[in-house]
Amino acid sequence: MHENNFRVNPHSLKTAISRVEKDKIVTRGYNQRDLIEKIRYSDMVFLILKGRLPSAKEGRMFNQVLVSFCDHGVTPPSTQTARLVASSGSPINSAVAGALLSFGHKHAGAIEKTMELFQSKINSLYLTEDSELDNKQIAGLAIDIFNEYTYGNKKIPGFGHRYHDVDPRAEKLMELAIKQGFIGPHIKLALAVEDLIHEKKGIRLNVDGANAAILSDLGFTPDLGLGVFIIGRVPGIIAHIHEEKMDEDEFRKFCDLDDIEYYGR
Amino acid sequence: MHENNFRVNPHSLKTAISRVEKDKIVTRGYNQRDLIEKIRYSDMVFLILKGRLPSAKEGRMFNQVLVSFCDHGVTPPSTQTARLVASSGSPINSAVAGALLSFGHKHAGAIEKTMELFQSKINSLYLTEDSELDNKQIAGLAIDIFNEYTYGNKKIPGFGHRYHDVDPRAEKLMELAIKQGFIGPHIKLALAVEDLIHEKKGIRLNVDGANAAILSDLGFTPDLGLGVFIIGRVPGIIAHIHEEKMDEDEFRKFCDLDDIEYYGR
Amino acid sequence: MHENNFRVNPHSLKTAISRVEKDKIVTRGYNQRDLIEKIRYSDMVFLILKGRLPSAKEGRMFNQVLVSFCDHGVTPPSTQTARLVASSGSPINSAVAGALLSFGHKHAGAIEKTMELFQSKINSLYLTEDSELDNKQIAGLAIDIFNEYTYGNKKIPGFGHRYHDVDPRAEKLMELAIKQGFIGPHIKLALAVEDLIHEKKGIRLNVDGANAAILSDLGFTPDLGLGVFIIGRVPGIIAHIHEEKMDEDEFRKFCDLDDIEYYGR
Amino acid sequence: MHENNFRVNPHSLKTAISRVEKDKIVTRGYNQRDLIEKIRYSDMVFLILKGRLPSAKEGRMFNQVLVSFCDHGVTPPSTQTARLVASSGSPINSAVAGALLSFGHKHAGAIEKTMELFQSKINSLYLTEDSELDNKQIAGLAIDIFNEYTYGNKKIPGFGHRYHDVDPRAEKLMELAIKQGFIGPHIKLALAVEDLIHEKKGIRLNVDGANAAILSDLGFTPDLGLGVFIIGRVPGIIAHIHEEKMDEDEFRKFCDLDDIEYYGR
Repeated sequence: MHENNFRVNPHSLKTAISRVEKDKIVTRGYNQRDLIEKIRYSDMVFLILKGRLPSAKEGRMFNQVLVSFCDHGVTPPSTQTARLVASSGSPINSAVAGALLSFGHKHAGAIEKTMELFQSKINSLYLTEDSELDNKQIAGLAIDIFNEYTYGNKKIPGFGHRYHDVDPRAEKLMELAIKQGFIGPHIKLALAVEDLIHEKKGIRLNVDGANAAILSDLGFTPDLGLGVFIIGRVPGIIAHIHEEKMDEDEFRKFCDLDDIEYYGR
Repeated sequence: MHENNFRVNPHSLKTAISRVEKDKIVTRGYNQRDLIEKIRYSDMVFLILKGRLPSAKEGRMFNQVLVSFCDHGVTPPSTQTARLVASSGSPINSAVAGALLSFGHKHAGAIEKTMELFQSKINSLYLTEDSELDNKQIAGLAIDIFNEYTYGNKKIPGFGHRYHDVDPRAEKLMELAIKQGFIGPHIKLALAVEDLIHEKKGIRLNVDGANAAILSDLGFTPDLGLGVFIIGRVPGIIAHIHEEKMDEDEFRKFCDLDDIEYYGR
Repeated sequence: MHENNFRVNPHSLKTAISRVEKDKIVTRGYNQRDLIEKIRYSDMVFLILKGRLPSAKEGRMFNQVLVSFCDHGVTPPSTQTARLVASSGSPINSAVAGALLSFGHKHAGAIEKTMELFQSKINSLYLTEDSELDNKQIAGLAIDIFNEYTYGNKKIPGFGHRYHDVDPRAEKLMELAIKQGFIGPHIKLALAVEDLIHEKKGIRLNVDGANAAILSDLGFTPDLGLGVFIIGRVPGIIAHIHEEKMDEDEFRKFCDLDDIEYYGR
Repeated sequence: MHENNFRVNPHSLKTAISRVEKDKIVTRGYNQRDLIEKIRYSDMVFLILKGRLPSAKEGRMFNQVLVSFCDHGVTPPSTQTARLVASSGSPINSAVAGALLSFGHKHAGAIEKTMELFQSKINSLYLTEDSELDNKQIAGLAIDIFNEYTYGNKKIPGFGHRYHDVDPRAEKLMELAIKQGFIGPHIKLALAVEDLIHEKKGIRLNVDGANAAILSDLGFTPDLGLGVFIIGRVPGIIAHIHEEKMDEDEFRKFCDLDDIEYYGR
């Protein structure tokens, strides 16, 4: 009887995220009433993405990841895009959308690439329960990565920053991971690569590299790396849009005619 | 000497949000190293938007606001848009951007309109320190609003939901506001309007209405209402995009030719 | 029997634009095979938007409208947004989307506002068949508009350009409208207002104003003004994105840290 | 003296597309006054993308390409996205942007992939002036492609359509290319592959495949394929957005709660 109905839209209405009934919403198995009352927003983000609540240690680290992404002033192309769109008089959601479109592979793609690198290397190991042995293996991986990229004349993703020598977010995150005893194999690998690349080239881990390692140890696959970054950065973007709309003239001129170099016919 | 330089881009590089120096990032006056170590992500959101940290009571309530926005299954147009864009093979940031574009005045605009309504009414009062007197005034406002919209044959924004009779998020948020002693004039007004409209028409406060009242009592102006909603909803949208990419065939057919009604020439 | 089917999606699959059958596509009543073989692309645009083919005179004028929108170098915020998004390594469709989001009410909204102004004024007239009488009425309208905006201390939409004294596109379009005998009441009104505002304030019609008048005389309502502008401008935006991707370094730095003024705490 | 100025923004204001001076705009070496008066819109698109005007034969073919992309009813995800965004009450430019974001590699990416395939194969040939010899070489290439994809169990891009057996646009475009004497090596290759794949598997060239061949013979590189498709499709998308806004209720329900299958906890 419903044959036609199911042919029309066979899959489009399937989800495991939230069950919505009249007067009741259940997300990842928890009543939203309970979630609203009892959990931190960062735990809610973890829950909705991973399908389970974090442990206390995981929750603390994930919260720190989100905070570390919040803002980098007006230097990123995404923030500049947000402000340009806002200056044209477009609504706030359009300006956020514009900013997200600037998260191309050169701007925000680094975190996924770094997660892929770390995870593919760690997945290639046979990890024992013996931490000394494993540390040795991971040190070996770090040398492999360093050599592979150096001989290929490529940048290792997750290292180096165009404005910072020591990315303060990366340094603090690694310090906290150690202090809080949250060090899995991916963080170990990140630190081992940093030791090498710092010694040889004076380059340090950046915020993407640090978070790639932490998210990997939290069990996130690379395909969610950009998603977590977006969640962390959107508040900063909205703050910039609001500032643009409050403090600047609409449709302000970003250049004068004689600032443009024309090199065509 | 720098005349040309300043003429080019006189304002584009001004901000009060973050100061970025080599190896140091300061946001709203706080070193990001400290923020990463010490504050909850929901407090970071508050800080970056409002320029100050919340009190403990404010922080708890704001956290609950963010959690309450997280997800409403696949029913909202924004979620459906996110999944459509993702199904075409576009990257995750494009799919989130698409979802945000669906936050038009009919979908996500309600929170700002409700904040405007509540704040314009409350701003018209001369609030005393005498809570009995003020409650009386607010009860009067509620009657004004009810009459104004009923006689104008218009829907009061922030009330009624197309899937719920009792929006469980709104009910829980109001319960928590009362329990936690976080009741300012806007929440009082929301509850007073709800009493009236529920008695006369069986309609209740929805999640937008409840959050409009809370955000107003937290000191947010209407122009940030949609921004807070976006921050709260983005994690849910990303979960749906990820689910679409993992569990569904790419470029799945959403309709067959004979499901379409053509009414042109 | 199909009750459920129709309840699901009662309207979503209705259209009068194209009928798609297996191996056959009919648009606005014409077989696409014929359209591909026989009509100019600008006529196709007219047909799909208005539901009928233009007359020869209309088609010529509409073609000129589209050409006039094509590009204004790197000065518009939309073009700058397109280049910023492209510089981040995002794909071309994302960069075009970003550009479109910069068509806020300050950048590209002028054409709709001008169409609304011209059409609301002309619709208030009782046009006779006597052109002398009508010209007199239209001259009166122009004075009304000028006075209304001057006394209200507002800019008349469609007049003045931040880079040009005489917008060459507007001047050429009006010259062609006259030469080709395509002058309806909206073009007459635009020219009458220009005479006044030029005499009194030295301000001339701009490209939005000229096209608002022409599109109004072509029978377009204001809600399609921005749509026609988008169609005209997208080729230019794509040329800029391509140029950015070919000629510039990806993720080039748009500012240095000491170019930013921080005025927060 | 201007050192600082150039450091700030060393490249951002360079373009070869249009030179904008006060009261004068020159695009690709032509005064826009002349372009507006004299050329077809499709020629303007060619000019701005390629930097030169097309020959008469090229111009005719390119016009046909653009017309052929205009609309495919409500079946494509991009059109459905456009309507969803529009239904939420968002402005027209946001709805077009949403549609463009649905041009992922599965929906609109085929044209670029097909151009890459055809061009990489043709570039590997040493084309003589002897058309019989060249035809033989191209026939050989077609067999290579067919075998490569068949043995790899992959779909050849540019062939097959989920709604059509014979894509009427592809068939008409190939017929016109032949009739108008516009047959370069890429079109020959497309036809040769079609002969094989039709004979062996009953599959025909689709609109993307036909246009990939034509655009390749027009001298477009693959990185502009999606751009040309966008230019051609935007008018259809705008027609759908307009229809949605005119003919449908805002924020119409696209599903009921019991149409959704929840398969989570």
